[in-house]
Amino acid sequence: MSSKPKVWTAGMLVIGDEILSGRTHDKNIAQVASWLQVQGIRLTEARVVADDMTAIGEAVTALADRYDYVFTTGGIGPTHDDITVDAIAKALGVPVVIHPDARAILYAYYKDRPGGLTEARLRMARVPEGADLIPNRMSGAPGIRLGKLFIMAGVPHITAGMLDALTGTLEGGAVLLNETVGCWVAESEVADVLREVEKAHEDCMIGSYPFFRDGRVGANFVIRSTSPEVLASAVDTLCEALGEEGYDFTPGGI
Amino acid sequence: MSSKPKVWTAGMLVIGDEILSGRTHDKNIAQVASWLQVQGIRLTEARVVADDMTAIGEAVTALADRYDYVFTTGGIGPTHDDITVDAIAKALGVPVVIHPDARAILYAYYKDRPGGLTEARLRMARVPEGADLIPNRMSGAPGIRLGKLFIMAGVPHITAGMLDALTGTLEGGAVLLNETVGCWVAESEVADVLREVEKAHEDCMIGSYPFFRDGRVGANFVIRSTSPEVLASAVDTLCEALGEEGYDFTPGGI
Repeated sequence: MSSKPKVWTAGMLVIGDEILSGRTHDKNIAQVASWLQVQGIRLTEARVVADDMTAIGEAVTALADRYDYVFTTGGIGPTHDDITVDAIAKALGVPVVIHPDARAILYAYYKDRPGGLTEARLRMARVPEGADLIPNRMSGAPGIRLGKLFIMAGVPHITAGMLDALTGTLEGGAVLLNETVGCWVAESEVADVLREVEKAHEDCMIGSYPFFRDGRVGANFVIRSTSPEVLASAVDTLCEALGEEGYDFTPGGI
Repeated sequence: MSSKPKVWTAGMLVIGDEILSGRTHDKNIAQVASWLQVQGIRLTEARVVADDMTAIGEAVTALADRYDYVFTTGGIGPTHDDITVDAIAKALGVPVVIHPDARAILYAYYKDRPGGLTEARLRMARVPEGADLIPNRMSGAPGIRLGKLFIMAGVPHITAGMLDALTGTLEGGAVLLNETVGCWVAESEVADVLREVEKAHEDCMIGSYPFFRDGRVGANFVIRSTSPEVLASAVDTLCEALGEEGYDFTPGGI
């Protein structure tokens, strides 16, 4: 028997009062999750905490203890509520230093803008000692990599640019593939079918996601596996079973 | 000196592979957060975990240890991947039982629907022993309350109905008020102003949320306080300072 391949895991920390007040809908969990899937890394847990030194430090430490990678978003801007770097450095017991390359990037970015590189803007060059930079082609201020930690922006399109810069640079494992089968049925009617198809296929997970649309109930069944063969077989078996029972189903999802 | 009033806190757990795969954007954190604000309760931390017994149990236990209330969303439907009740009961060391009122609700809901109250549907009447029900006027299956724990649906409009049923029933404290001031400015230009206004007002927090719109940079500054007087004073001071420096600002936000 071959040993099972390593599954690479990630934890994520979303930092910001604005998410916990309900003012802002987080978009970064879904964005980072989708990106990680393609890198062969599974987002296993996400947390959201306020702009609070202790809460950030504790969460980063807990996630770093558990997962291969940790991604944070938020709190790396120029204002007083941007304390992510300080909180992480304190939790790791390392000093905060000005990264010379970050300072050069910010100098170039702001030199022709009103005010130039002010002290507030220079805050964005501060990193935990020993860190590398993650390029940000959107707005100058870079993200920060420190070992397994990736400290990124909170504004989603800037985060997207940082993820793009990281694409292909992280070690990962087998990509978790997925296919969706949609069906106009109350999921409770096919609960047994779903359970049996999942059981019959090792390395296969089936999630059921009900919806209400145009006055009808339906559900999308998402089948996941790292093996293309297992995935194809599970999808076939599920479609066959749904067809036999006379349900109106759509490979690809509804 | 008067002692500080108690701040009521809540933790939240979002349960579901679909959020961690990036397939589904969570809407419940923002929804629960906004609702809690009005109840005078602060959402202090949110976590997202997969449909995994151990992960759910550990997270619920950790959040219940830290906060006055814990809200979960997801994993209480009729299919095999709906394991929230089992995971929480196991973590608490109590058995899972059929709640007679939940059975009666489901019986009434399904009796004229194809298949009636099947075994899969009856799963939705299972609760940790000792629990009460949270009414669900959208789709029959109730939510569950067990002491400080509130176990709710994952589908956002059903969650909304459950929150509505809970409105005004939870003990809370002073509502955290907020006002927004928008300004067409790079937040880094006014970082000092923001810091000083916050410092000058006790029980006041100012968050800065930059944006890029119509080719211009701007930011919304959200001022929060439990005191209407402090809030009004902080907003006035901020607007005055922005006006003095010649910035184009808009009370109410941009």
